Amino acid sequence: MRARRGHSSSRDARLPLVSAKQRSPTVKMGGPTELVLERADGSQHSIHPLWLRERCRDPASIDLQTQQRLQDPSDFDIELALVAVSQPLPGTYRIKFSDGHEASFNAEEILAEAALTPTSHDCPAPRLWDGTLAELPRARWRADPGAAELSSWLEAFLTLGFVVFEGVPTEPGMVLKLGAMFGFTRETNFGALFNVRSTPNANDLAYTSLALDPHTDNPYRAPVPGIQLLHCLVNETSGGLSTLVDGFAVAQALRERHPQAFALLASTPVRFKYLDVDAELTASAPLIELDLGGDPKAIHFSPRLDFVPLFARERLDAYYRARQLFDHRLRAPDFAIRFLLKAGDLVMFDNCRLLHGRTAFDPSEGLRHLQGCYIDSDGPRSLYRVLRRRRAQSSAERRSA
Amino acid sequence: MRARRGHSSSRDARLPLVSAKQRSPTVKMGGPTELVLERADGSQHSIHPLWLRERCRDPASIDLQTQQRLQDPSDFDIELALVAVSQPLPGTYRIKFSDGHEASFNAEEILAEAALTPTSHDCPAPRLWDGTLAELPRARWRADPGAAELSSWLEAFLTLGFVVFEGVPTEPGMVLKLGAMFGFTRETNFGALFNVRSTPNANDLAYTSLALDPHTDNPYRAPVPGIQLLHCLVNETSGGLSTLVDGFAVAQALRERHPQAFALLASTPVRFKYLDVDAELTASAPLIELDLGGDPKAIHFSPRLDFVPLFARERLDAYYRARQLFDHRLRAPDFAIRFLLKAGDLVMFDNCRLLHGRTAFDPSEGLRHLQGCYIDSDGPRSLYRVLRRRRAQSSAERRSA
Repeated sequence: MRARRGHSSSRDARLPLVSAKQRSPTVKMGGPTELVLERADGSQHSIHPLWLRERCRDPASIDLQTQQRLQDPSDFDIELALVAVSQPLPGTYRIKFSDGHEASFNAEEILAEAALTPTSHDCPAPRLWDGTLAELPRARWRADPGAAELSSWLEAFLTLGFVVFEGVPTEPGMVLKLGAMFGFTRETNFGALFNVRSTPNANDLAYTSLALDPHTDNPYRAPVPGIQLLHCLVNETSGGLSTLVDGFAVAQALRERHPQAFALLASTPVRFKYLDVDAELTASAPLIELDLGGDPKAIHFSPRLDFVPLFARERLDAYYRARQLFDHRLRAPDFAIRFLLKAGDLVMFDNCRLLHGRTAFDPSEGLRHLQGCYIDSDGPRSLYRVLRRRRAQSSAERRSA
Repeated sequence: MRARRGHSSSRDARLPLVSAKQRSPTVKMGGPTELVLERADGSQHSIHPLWLRERCRDPASIDLQTQQRLQDPSDFDIELALVAVSQPLPGTYRIKFSDGHEASFNAEEILAEAALTPTSHDCPAPRLWDGTLAELPRARWRADPGAAELSSWLEAFLTLGFVVFEGVPTEPGMVLKLGAMFGFTRETNFGALFNVRSTPNANDLAYTSLALDPHTDNPYRAPVPGIQLLHCLVNETSGGLSTLVDGFAVAQALRERHPQAFALLASTPVRFKYLDVDAELTASAPLIELDLGGDPKAIHFSPRLDFVPLFARERLDAYYRARQLFDHRLRAPDFAIRFLLKAGDLVMFDNCRLLHGRTAFDPSEGLRHLQGCYIDSDGPRSLYRVLRRRRAQSSAERRSA
């Protein structure tokens, strides 16, 4: 696994520096009837009794097999209080609630949950990149990778939004097999597997030899396919370079320079449309979709298929200017990386974050044949967490052995 | 198709009544260089030149095969203007743009697009219902329905959020065949097809004989499965009634009575978790997810699996109160309908809008065996639009014959 990261992102730069004053967050007693979280900056927060009550993990509270609660927490007394807190062991708190229930809590688990930002995926965070990304995250493909190897592939994918596998057997259908290692196949009207090559009477621009500017796929679907895999079976042309752009990095650059344009693109619903004999797909989404924390969650960008509603002229004036600022950055060489997919290469990328495209090619030079498929977004994240959990379990077993 | 709708929803009631003053919206010339939309209330809006320019449908502007644009609209002059507007035929406008391009526009098409609310799916709008829903939307299943019959099934599903098919052959796997008529199967860690019956060592509460309060499925997945189908193969028990609740109706009731609680639930990210040997799924979503127009887009509710982040105590206090208000309404008999799924019945429902559950059953009475699957949200909407388009095309052909 060779994964060199590009320039450090402005996202990282925004993190406050750790000062000498800061310490590790801790959980401690705030008196005989209170549990307190002390954050790294020294601020103290009384932990809500219901927050603790709904996390009880004794057999009366959860089904041990499924780990699911046996009771709806809205049935608890809304005025529930702690009536006794003790610390029988370091890092363990025993709590008695006003409804008579008693349970033990592990400080480490509370701290781990408190450390997550509210909308975090509990996975390695994105590291934004631009055209200066020094080296692509490339991995030698193996059908039976070890756990550490698989984790490193997933980490590259989760942080950079893509990974390029080399040496994937050039058998038709391999892309589905490889995709199934990471998540469930997402079928669309292009099929579970689609062939990307120049064809006459193409039902999409992708199936011509024209250049494709960076775009996200299928913004007209609900839900949008989360992850795309493209496997190169043959490439005898000199053009047709693959391009990738980190849409989150471009959105961040727009936000810094033109905050109003960013806000407008994040709040204007745009209708994306796709029309075929057997399909009429329409979905509304902003070009930059934010999560509840105000961070980009998905980019929807396909300038051949987008239709902004007929808003008042002034609003459209501002919208078209904002869209142009975003569009020109998305197409600027500063943000894009270009590389040749050769036979046996397979690129897997996050279709909600990265935009992809290609340069034009001359079909008279030879064949260019890719096979593609989509998988759901949550597969790689789930696999990453499972591998992390297994690693933690086996190191705990080693410690106790 | 017997589809009686329940009480008229408050959503409908909010629509302004058509007064004598109102007229049909029209498109007209606003002078020699302007096209104007006059809305039903008499207000006039100058139509933005770029809005028109990116809708040109001549062979120089779009690929006639794919209907996709040949040019990125951000390459148009941001100051583009109309230099001449004429009306060669009633309902047709000929426009010359300042970049020299000329194109014709159909007033009917502009009006159809202007009539859509910005986030509309361009499909029949939801009709909210509660426990007074007089009769269920039931349809006699046929493997080869006519277009009108199929449209009526889809209309019931799109407006009410569910439809019950009767007389579906009780062959295992039929649920996948029926689902494939409406959309692409969405596989999850429960399989492409899952069996719902009481089993020992269940990996989910669904696979026990316990009562299940109304909930949405798989809120811990990203994306959440859009539509669920449940097919009853055998039901020899007297309990195990199916329950459905219109989550949008409950959210609307909460909004009217407790607007602050509604706003809090719409803005607080909650982490949903699912843990299994081979999966660790986590997704953050608000209990009530809104679209950019401020209308409910999806309900995420599964009180055995939700974990609100460790916010400050005051915020959690308000959150738990709001959650309880929502939860108690979701479980109140006023909003729920209950019905027995008998062998051969199949219910298809919108998992982003409706909550489903069941009453407890006694497995010693006999067998209860359902098979289920998920399909993607956009399938039924696409099919509805395709059927509508074909209907319009054939009536246009009849008119011109």
